[in-house]
Amino acid sequence: MKFNIALLAGDGIGPEVINEAVKVSDAIAKKFNHEINWTPALTGACAIDAVGVPYPDETHEICMAADAVLFGAIGHPKYDNDPKATVRPEQGLLLMRKKLGLFANVRPTFTFPSLIDNSPLKRERIEGTDLVFLRELTGGIYFGEKGRRDNGETAYDNCVYTRVEVQRLAKKGFELAMTRSKKLCCVDKANVLETSRLWRETVQAMEKDYPEVTVSYEFVDAVAMRLVQWPNSYDVLITENLFGDILTDEASVISGSMGLMPSASVGEHTSLYEPIHGSYPQATGLNIANPLATILSAAMMFEDAFGLKDEAEAIRAVVNKSLEQGIVTEDLAPKGTKAYKTSEVGDWLVANL
Amino acid sequence: MKFNIALLAGDGIGPEVINEAVKVSDAIAKKFNHEINWTPALTGACAIDAVGVPYPDETHEICMAADAVLFGAIGHPKYDNDPKATVRPEQGLLLMRKKLGLFANVRPTFTFPSLIDNSPLKRERIEGTDLVFLRELTGGIYFGEKGRRDNGETAYDNCVYTRVEVQRLAKKGFELAMTRSKKLCCVDKANVLETSRLWRETVQAMEKDYPEVTVSYEFVDAVAMRLVQWPNSYDVLITENLFGDILTDEASVISGSMGLMPSASVGEHTSLYEPIHGSYPQATGLNIANPLATILSAAMMFEDAFGLKDEAEAIRAVVNKSLEQGIVTEDLAPKGTKAYKTSEVGDWLVANL
Ligand SMILES: CC(C)[C@H](C(=O)O)[C@@H](O)C(=O)O
Ligand SMILES: CC(C)[C@H](C(=O)O)[C@@H](O)C(=O)O
Repeated sequence: MKFNIALLAGDGIGPEVINEAVKVSDAIAKKFNHEINWTPALTGACAIDAVGVPYPDETHEICMAADAVLFGAIGHPKYDNDPKATVRPEQGLLLMRKKLGLFANVRPTFTFPSLIDNSPLKRERIEGTDLVFLRELTGGIYFGEKGRRDNGETAYDNCVYTRVEVQRLAKKGFELAMTRSKKLCCVDKANVLETSRLWRETVQAMEKDYPEVTVSYEFVDAVAMRLVQWPNSYDVLITENLFGDILTDEASVISGSMGLMPSASVGEHTSLYEPIHGSYPQATGLNIANPLATILSAAMMFEDAFGLKDEAEAIRAVVNKSLEQGIVTEDLAPKGTKAYKTSEVGDWLVANL
Repeated sequence: MKFNIALLAGDGIGPEVINEAVKVSDAIAKKFNHEINWTPALTGACAIDAVGVPYPDETHEICMAADAVLFGAIGHPKYDNDPKATVRPEQGLLLMRKKLGLFANVRPTFTFPSLIDNSPLKRERIEGTDLVFLRELTGGIYFGEKGRRDNGETAYDNCVYTRVEVQRLAKKGFELAMTRSKKLCCVDKANVLETSRLWRETVQAMEKDYPEVTVSYEFVDAVAMRLVQWPNSYDVLITENLFGDILTDEASVISGSMGLMPSASVGEHTSLYEPIHGSYPQATGLNIANPLATILSAAMMFEDAFGLKDEAEAIRAVVNKSLEQGIVTEDLAPKGTKAYKTSEVGDWLVANL
């Protein structure tokens, strides 16, 4: 098979981790007789620096024309503490999500047996954790009208959801639940928010179409607690954009493998694969960032975007092997053991595929 | 001294835990020669059942006339899964916060040495954790305009903040930081939300008035992670209403002592003290609920509302003693040891004051 993949390395450590994912993907393609055509494009702070906007039209066209998008990370500290900056890297991310119609962000959280003791949580709390968040990604307070009035003294952000937006996300949730343990949790704040009540009533009305799925409804604050207490009590969770932002990040640290968690964003036009970690500016250029989350995101791409399960499994298998053999970057290397460089991990994976 | 305290027991286990807090408070008052005049009033589901509204005017008048309010918990499952209910217990809570001007919710999270192993987190991660959230409680998306349009197909919730609202909350945060380790973290989502940018710019402008305080600005998703990873890296955190709802609940489970965490809500007219746990409907009437969070909330009331530090310390000391001696309800009793009833714990505390 032949694939066109848009390659959005982004900022910070983005280019370094993307580089390793490309190496591993190319090696897999070679092994399984595929051909990948990578098209690099600018996004984030580096796009602002180069052309003044964080998600240039040219980048958008490249993404639309591609079979999938592989994404690194964006964000630069020079924008973080300037509440008055008018162009921000994050705007590029949001615009990209919106224009590509990526309404569902798929965020698995699972444990690696060899890393379980890295978790801040006790082993018995996390063993068996294997959950997936479906976060709505193109609606809610992220995209509602926002601004100032009263000479800047009052700020507002509007959160808006339509039933159709909830339905298409929830549909993916029900479908995913059917392929797993048939348990779905709808996370909302229906005791306070009208948008949450729309979510809850919409999901309730869909239950009859999936009689085998057991649906629970939980408040976001309760889930924020239970995720730490009993993460393995969850399976598929669906939620709106902002709750999803907070909870998926919270969930990512329970496994002890934050640096390894991949994600996919899917929807109308194409699909995008990216590590959940950020651009980690302090590590930029040091060749120390952990490339595994990006490499595992590439595995998700092979499986979900191209339907190539064996290729995905081959990547996961070699990643597992590297973990077991301790071929890891400094974030995972136990004190007193050798830490490998970003590129060394990629080289090892390619050699051991 | 003489005090008038409004007593809002609320729903579920509220009346049971409040009962023990009253017993302990009365015993302390007697010991220190104070006189407490308790005035019970209805709120929550029980108020809806009795008079049709969750925060009756009469209750409000009793609170306004009181020196402080001691609150149990509200909420009833019959309202939870009915997105179309028009009267809800939670509305009472929100109305009460608004009408009493309780704009700052003070939520400490700390560990009890004797309970540290109950935490889902590893001991070395939580030892020394002692942080306080100041959650804005009368603004934001909780109180913005909300509703439906397009025949109910579209729902919206508006999040609004004014600079003055941010300032008065942040002022309490800076002041609290000055009495502690002089570290303040402002939690927001300034990379996406305009209200968060107003928060950040307002707090930044206040920094010069508190030159000794070191202020950090962190995104809510990052804080949701770091709270689980390194809770003891935080001291005072300030944040808006919804972020505070989620993060304070998350923080409450890290200590392993969720059932013991007290809280205060302070502001314009009076102050209110309540356990952070909910109405725990399944346990209602069983005399098994843990009363310590409510009792420790009463201690906060003695200290903060009445300026009686010795009285507060006496309550905390006897609570510690009960924990060390294992005089605890079933949620804290290790397997195979005796669990005490709610009322037995209260009796023991009174006898051992
Ligand atoms: C960078 C930021 C705008 C973004 C978000 O909030 O969606 C990030 O936190 C994420 O989760 O992808
Ligand atoms: C019951 C609910 C409305 C309330 C809130 O969200 O504020 C509760 O979760 C709390 O934190 O006191």
